[in-house]
Amino acid sequence: MTTTAHHRTAPGHPDQASRDSDPAFLLHRGGKIGLDVTVPLTGPDDLSLAYTPGVARVCMAIAEDPSLADEYTWRSNVVAVVTDGTAVLGLGDIGPLGAMPVMEGKAALFKHFGGVDAVPICLDCTDTEQIVETVMRLAPSFGGINLEDISAPRCFAIESLLQARLDIPVFHDDQHGTAIVALAALENAAKLTGRRLADLRAVVSGAGAAGVAVTRILLAAGIGDIAVADSKGLLHAGRPNMTPVKAALAAETNKAGRSGPIESALAGADVFLGLSAGTVPESAVATMASEAIIFAMANPDPEIDPAVAAKYARVVATGRSDYPNQINNVLAFPGVFRGALDVRATRVTEGMKLAAADALAAVIDGELTEEHIIPSPFDERVAPTVAAAVARQARAEGVARR
Amino acid sequence: MTTTAHHRTAPGHPDQASRDSDPAFLLHRGGKIGLDVTVPLTGPDDLSLAYTPGVARVCMAIAEDPSLADEYTWRSNVVAVVTDGTAVLGLGDIGPLGAMPVMEGKAALFKHFGGVDAVPICLDCTDTEQIVETVMRLAPSFGGINLEDISAPRCFAIESLLQARLDIPVFHDDQHGTAIVALAALENAAKLTGRRLADLRAVVSGAGAAGVAVTRILLAAGIGDIAVADSKGLLHAGRPNMTPVKAALAAETNKAGRSGPIESALAGADVFLGLSAGTVPESAVATMASEAIIFAMANPDPEIDPAVAAKYARVVATGRSDYPNQINNVLAFPGVFRGALDVRATRVTEGMKLAAADALAAVIDGELTEEHIIPSPFDERVAPTVAAAVARQARAEGVARR
Repeated sequence: MTTTAHHRTAPGHPDQASRDSDPAFLLHRGGKIGLDVTVPLTGPDDLSLAYTPGVARVCMAIAEDPSLADEYTWRSNVVAVVTDGTAVLGLGDIGPLGAMPVMEGKAALFKHFGGVDAVPICLDCTDTEQIVETVMRLAPSFGGINLEDISAPRCFAIESLLQARLDIPVFHDDQHGTAIVALAALENAAKLTGRRLADLRAVVSGAGAAGVAVTRILLAAGIGDIAVADSKGLLHAGRPNMTPVKAALAAETNKAGRSGPIESALAGADVFLGLSAGTVPESAVATMASEAIIFAMANPDPEIDPAVAAKYARVVATGRSDYPNQINNVLAFPGVFRGALDVRATRVTEGMKLAAADALAAVIDGELTEEHIIPSPFDERVAPTVAAAVARQARAEGVARR
Repeated sequence: MTTTAHHRTAPGHPDQASRDSDPAFLLHRGGKIGLDVTVPLTGPDDLSLAYTPGVARVCMAIAEDPSLADEYTWRSNVVAVVTDGTAVLGLGDIGPLGAMPVMEGKAALFKHFGGVDAVPICLDCTDTEQIVETVMRLAPSFGGINLEDISAPRCFAIESLLQARLDIPVFHDDQHGTAIVALAALENAAKLTGRRLADLRAVVSGAGAAGVAVTRILLAAGIGDIAVADSKGLLHAGRPNMTPVKAALAAETNKAGRSGPIESALAGADVFLGLSAGTVPESAVATMASEAIIFAMANPDPEIDPAVAAKYARVVATGRSDYPNQINNVLAFPGVFRGALDVRATRVTEGMKLAAADALAAVIDGELTEEHIIPSPFDERVAPTVAAAVARQARAEGVARR
């Protein structure tokens, strides 16, 4: 989910009194997470097993066979939630300390929904190579790396460099979590409206981390056609001065080679996917095909007002919890990591992401309505179902270690 | 505490069956720590406070006033337990994965005894500069850095470089935890035997992390004289080819300028402090002064067998839990960090370490016997007493931020 820069100007610098009357600040006092000790430490016998001298036998066994670290430490169940604080929600580059409440929240969601232990790591560096080398050095401590709120385009290189060098899953949630949930919702919306993904022509607003990843997963899932617009308009093969990521996307999308503003692609389109802070005028929405599907996922202000969208579309989804059909990453990342860790996967493949989306969509198979194309974040079937599908696919692709 | 290289050859490579019958392995399965979520996450309202949109207000407030991170995140209560796995217990350089069970154990002790959250960070690098830069980059995530099981002499530079550059406490426990507890025990042993520290001449076996730190704190506490021996014999001002750390120590110690093996300093000495894997022959022990004090702290094999030591000394202490007077770091580090974090100290000064030792010794004031010169690790008075003394001293020295 993304949040617009709206917050940046909203509350100013709240003083102590206004913080003390804000339930969000009251909840955050002292943080949202802590350490849980899972073994007894009440007497000398406990200490001699959990610490010296007993611990030395475990250390030596791992030193001789490093794979035992996954069995006899918390490593195989703990994920680092790593950020540099450069793209926090829609707040932008607010730095590592400002990012901490989001990373703590993420860690809490990992544990609550997926039983995955997680540790917020807010880095005091923004250089791609420095982030990569730092995470490489930390990696022995973790069973997986969840990259979070790192701005594009650095996030693409950081993820791919890390995954190439590490044998644990590296997953940039802003990309792939959003992509998995958006695909699941679109699969269900297509099903509800009697179409296949291959029948649909989609338009994506936003070519940041989420826009790129959503586009890629929809291509992999077989969408009929898809065009992507950034703040300068539609990506097309002939557009000059694109980043390598955008150029690659342009080559695979926009079959008709449309150029100009997003409106020129929206006319007759079946699907709108908003992953930006931009807005789309009602006049453009009105030109979409009948039975249109609109996912306006920007937070807190959707690219298209849901009431306006509902006038022209059959299915409307947002990133907000106060409208139906919330596209919420929490539907994906706890189950994805739960499944990957359960089989000690070395990576999260494209196939595993597709399997996660399919499984997520199928959770509410038979319950589909226009206002229920995606499960609630509190649907307890979600994480186990996604985890099982991810684990099964990891095994099928030979990236599971058990 | 240190452990000799004894373990290295002990159990070999235990197979699954022998691991499954070893209570230490059984206890370690799945690790010893986990994440604790300290806020409710059971419904949409919870989520909108702990995560988006509520979290955004907290993030922005911190971005505008970074000091608020200490109030509204877990940062001010969480310590990174950082190692490179080069000097784990007495097992030596067993690498970051092999070190994890000790770091997890340490984290568990931090929480259990001090209420301090802690995260094991096992680094895949051993270069001094790389460790320093990595910890610098991680530092926004933590309220303190506990360095652990990093081999000498790198541990000295790593600690001092980090403390010079960070405004949170950096504490190498193998040095200072051991030093604080040894000083406390020696203060009580001196008191019990009717002497002042200034009356005592001490000999230290070992010039690694613990030997150096114990020597320094005893000098700071006003020990009468102290001589240090490494594997090549006594440090003295004229000895060639010493490391800078040993040369500095030689300049401040060994007033009589003794050279040669440790035995030449033991004759007539009041105190022996063993912080090495070496052994001392009974013939040398027999030459010590009357009312001698022997702390043979190597684990699992003390430098002097406690039964032999008891023949010549009035007070004997070891690093082991199965003899009286265990010199155990857990008596220091939870309270030291508890106190430092409570007042958001920017560092742990020499004065704070001395205050910790004095407070620790005073816990059993009035209870002193030859077999009880230091509290039990399970004495519940210890951590709060040490914490209060450390906090008070931090304020007195102006290194507290609240």
